[in-house]
Amino acid sequence: LDLSTFNLDSSSDTPIYKQLAEFVRGMIDRGIMCGGERLPATRELAGQLGLNRTTVSAAYSLLEEAGLIEGQVGRGSFVAKSMTARRVFPARDWDSILPPVEAVFKGPVQHVEISFASSRPADDQFPLAEFRKVTRQVIDGPDAADILQLGSAYGYAPLRRYLMEQTTGCGMARAGDDLMITNGCQQALDLIARVFAAAGVVVLEDPVYHGVVRVFSRMGAEVVTVPVGEAGLDPNALEQIFERTRPKLLVVTPSFQNPTGASLSLEGRRRVVAVTQRFGCVVVENGIYSELRYAGSPLPTLKELDETGNTILLGSYSKVGFPGLRVGWVIGPRPVITRLADAKEVSDLHSDHLSQAVLLKFAESGELKRHLERTREAGAERLSAVLRACAQYLPLDARYTKPQGGMSLWIELPAPLTADTLLNRVQERGVNFVPGRHFSTRNIHARNLRISFGALSPEQITRGIKILGDTAKEELAAALPIDDFEPAAALV
Amino acid sequence: LDLSTFNLDSSSDTPIYKQLAEFVRGMIDRGIMCGGERLPATRELAGQLGLNRTTVSAAYSLLEEAGLIEGQVGRGSFVAKSMTARRVFPARDWDSILPPVEAVFKGPVQHVEISFASSRPADDQFPLAEFRKVTRQVIDGPDAADILQLGSAYGYAPLRRYLMEQTTGCGMARAGDDLMITNGCQQALDLIARVFAAAGVVVLEDPVYHGVVRVFSRMGAEVVTVPVGEAGLDPNALEQIFERTRPKLLVVTPSFQNPTGASLSLEGRRRVVAVTQRFGCVVVENGIYSELRYAGSPLPTLKELDETGNTILLGSYSKVGFPGLRVGWVIGPRPVITRLADAKEVSDLHSDHLSQAVLLKFAESGELKRHLERTREAGAERLSAVLRACAQYLPLDARYTKPQGGMSLWIELPAPLTADTLLNRVQERGVNFVPGRHFSTRNIHARNLRISFGALSPEQITRGIKILGDTAKEELAAALPIDDFEPAAALV
Repeated sequence: LDLSTFNLDSSSDTPIYKQLAEFVRGMIDRGIMCGGERLPATRELAGQLGLNRTTVSAAYSLLEEAGLIEGQVGRGSFVAKSMTARRVFPARDWDSILPPVEAVFKGPVQHVEISFASSRPADDQFPLAEFRKVTRQVIDGPDAADILQLGSAYGYAPLRRYLMEQTTGCGMARAGDDLMITNGCQQALDLIARVFAAAGVVVLEDPVYHGVVRVFSRMGAEVVTVPVGEAGLDPNALEQIFERTRPKLLVVTPSFQNPTGASLSLEGRRRVVAVTQRFGCVVVENGIYSELRYAGSPLPTLKELDETGNTILLGSYSKVGFPGLRVGWVIGPRPVITRLADAKEVSDLHSDHLSQAVLLKFAESGELKRHLERTREAGAERLSAVLRACAQYLPLDARYTKPQGGMSLWIELPAPLTADTLLNRVQERGVNFVPGRHFSTRNIHARNLRISFGALSPEQITRGIKILGDTAKEELAAALPIDDFEPAAALV
Repeated sequence: LDLSTFNLDSSSDTPIYKQLAEFVRGMIDRGIMCGGERLPATRELAGQLGLNRTTVSAAYSLLEEAGLIEGQVGRGSFVAKSMTARRVFPARDWDSILPPVEAVFKGPVQHVEISFASSRPADDQFPLAEFRKVTRQVIDGPDAADILQLGSAYGYAPLRRYLMEQTTGCGMARAGDDLMITNGCQQALDLIARVFAAAGVVVLEDPVYHGVVRVFSRMGAEVVTVPVGEAGLDPNALEQIFERTRPKLLVVTPSFQNPTGASLSLEGRRRVVAVTQRFGCVVVENGIYSELRYAGSPLPTLKELDETGNTILLGSYSKVGFPGLRVGWVIGPRPVITRLADAKEVSDLHSDHLSQAVLLKFAESGELKRHLERTREAGAERLSAVLRACAQYLPLDARYTKPQGGMSLWIELPAPLTADTLLNRVQERGVNFVPGRHFSTRNIHARNLRISFGALSPEQITRGIKILGDTAKEELAAALPIDDFEPAAALV
C-alpha cells in the first residue's frame, strides 16, 4: 500500500489532515485500497510524507468516524471490511469489437400465473424419491472415483454401452453406427452445425425451434426452409427444394415437432427418406419428443426406415427425464461420430459424468420406464385438456394443430390479430406464451403462437386457454370494422 | 414381415426348401428380419408362396439347425434373439463432405505403467467420503426439484451467487463484471473463441495447451504466438508482437502454465498488463492452476492488476476438485459475459445442474478448502520428487523448467534426440508422455516433452523419470558419432 503519492495542496483552505483523509477516501473509493488492508502506522506515514504525526492521526480519526477505516488496539488501522473495490474506469466500447446480442424472447416482468412459454416437463412431477435412490446408489457404488475423473469425449463408457445396446436392436442403430453423449440435444445440434457448416445447403423446418435456427445461422451455414403443417413437413415442398438447392443436410423432427406438435405419418416418413436418399442428403432426426406419445400408434423413426444407414438420430433424457441434467446423445455413421467427438473435445472435453451415471442407473433400474408411463398418462390428460379448451374458447376461425404427443401445439389467430398484440394483453392477465415469429428464420408467423403445455396442470391449461381465447375475441371484436351499412332508399 | 418376395429358381439344382432357407437367411443377414421377429406360420407361408407345407417346414428346420430361428411350442417360429440388424449398404464417402479428422495425441496400445501424459489430479486422492456427504445433502435438500429443472445459460443461480461473492472481494471481480458458469475451462475458451473470432488477431502462448490452439484455429481466428520460457511469456517479445500485429485478444496462463509449468513474476505480470492496456488488447487469463501453488509466495492475478476491468478471468473446479464434474466459470465485463451467455445458450442451453450444486456444497462447507490443502501438500511432494529426479537422472545437458506449482513441467532433450524417438523407446518400458510438438501451432518443439506429474505418486515419478533419463542417455550414446580420432604419427 503506497500513500506516498499524496500531494499536499498548500494553497488550499482545506486543512492538511482533511486533504489527507480525502486522498485516502479516494484510494478506497477507487478500489486501490481494499477492505481489510492495513494502513501505514501514523508515525511511518508522517515520516514518509514529511507531515506532523498528529496531522496523520487526525486524518485517520476522520476516516474512522466516517466508517471507512477501523482501528484495532495494538495492531494499527485497517480499511473497513465493508469497503471493496469500486474503482471505475471508463467503459470500453465492446460493441465495436463484439458481435451484436440477438434479441431473444424473454418472459414478461409482471408475474406470470400460467406460462405456455417453455417446452419442459412439470417439476412437481419429478420422481424425486427415485432420483434420490439411484443417485445414492451411484455415489456409494464402486465407480464413484471413475465418475469424478477425466473422461472421454464420447461419453461415460457404461452409459454409452447401455445406449448402444438399447439402440442396436432392430434397426435403430446399425452396423457401422457409433454413439456419442452430448449435453442434451442442443449440443448435438451445435456440434453437427460445426461439422457440417461447410458441407453445403442446410434445410430446416419452418416454423422450427429457435435453437435450431440459431445454431446453424451462427455457424454461417446456408439455410433454406421447408414448411411444416398439421402433418409435419411437406414432402412435395421438400422435393422441390431438393431439386432447386441440392442440400447436404436436412434437420427434421418427425414426431411432435417443436413448436407445432405435428408428426409425419408413416407415408410421410417414407417419402422424406426416399427424397433424401435420392439426393444424397444426410438426415438429422431430432427424436427427443418421440417417446412422449399420448395417442395413436407408434411410428418408426426415419433412422429405422433409412436402410442406407446415413441418418443421424438425436436422443435425450431431458424431455422424458430431467432437463436440468444435461444428457443427450447422437447416433450416426462412425465417420460422422468421429468428427462430432473431435468437435466435442474442442468444445468442452466431455459431458459431466455424474448426471450420466445417475441417468444410466435411472434407466437401467426401470425407473425411467415407470416415470415415462406416468408422464404419458399425465401428458394424455394435458393434451385432451388443451385440445378441449382450444375447441371451446378460441375464436371460431382460429386454427390449431392437433398433436398426439409432445409438449406443444401451434395456434393461428384470425386476421388482423397478431400474436404480439395478444401477448401484450394476456400478460396483463398473468398468461405467457412465445409468439410465432421466434420460430422462424425470417420473422414471419406474426399470427401464430406456440402453446407449450408440458409443465401445466389440466386446470391451468383450461384456464389459460380460456384467457387467451376470451382476450382474442375481445381484440377481434374491437378490431372489426363497425357495420356502417345503411340501407339506401329504394330507387324509384 | 413379408416373405412374398421369395422367387423360386426352378432351374436350380438346389432343393426348394434350401432355396427358401437361403432366402430367409439373407433377410436376416441384411437386417430386414430382426431378432425376436415372428415368422409366418408354415401353413400361411406355404399358401402365400404356392408351396407345399412340408417344404416350408423343411426350410424352417434347416434354419433352426443353423441357429438362425427358434421354434416355440404353440407359438410358432421366431428369428433368433441373437440375430440383429446386419444389413450393410455401400458406405457413403463422408470424407468428401466433412472436415478432416485432426491427428491428436493418443496413448499407446501397450500397457502404460507410468503415464506423464495427462494433466489431471490423482483419483486415489479424491475425497470420496466428503463427495458422498455433500452430494447426499444436495439431493436430499429442498432444491432437488430446481436442480432437475431447466436453468439459465449463466449457470445454477446459487453457485453463481457464491462465486460472485467469493470473487467480488478485493479486485478479482470488479464493479461492472459478471460471471457465467461453463463446462470447465475448455468451454469458456470455446465460447470466447466464438465471440472474439472476428474481432482481430489473437495472441496465444507457445508452447501452449493444445486445447487452446485447437479452439481458436477451428473458429478461423488469426493466431500469432508469443514464446513462453522459464519465467512465463516474454514481455519484450509480446510488446514487439503488439506493435506489429495490434491484436485484439491475448490468452495467457500466468501461473503454472500448461505445458511448461512456468509462472510470470509480479514484474512480468505488471508488464503484460501495461502492454495490453497500452494497445487496448483484451486479456483472457486462464487461472485454473493458480491455487495449486506448492512453493513460493502467491502472486496477484492479471485480473487484479488490470484496473481497466477489461481482463477476462477463467476459473474451474476441475484441477482443484474433480475433472469428471465439468464446472468452470468466466468472470469479465458484463458486455462480454452477455455475449458469452448468448453463445452458451446456442451451444448447450446451460451447464449440468447436479454437479454445480454438488460443487457449491463442497466449496461452501469448507471441504474444498481442506481438500485443496491436502492437494497442495501432496503436490509439494510430487514437485520435489520430479525436480529431484530430473536433476539426478536426465542427461546433463537436458534442460527443464522448475515450476512452483501446477501439474506439469517441460523438458528439452539434448540434440539430436527427439521426443518422438524417446517416446517410442519409453513406451516399451511402460512410460508415456506427450511430445512437445502437440503444444504448438506449428508442429515445432521436436526436442521437448511435457511431464505431467499431478496424478502420480512420488515413487512413480522418480521411477518414471529414471526410465526417461536412462533411455535418453542410451539413445544419445547410440546417436553420438563414434570417437574415431586416431592420433597421427608425428610429422617429422
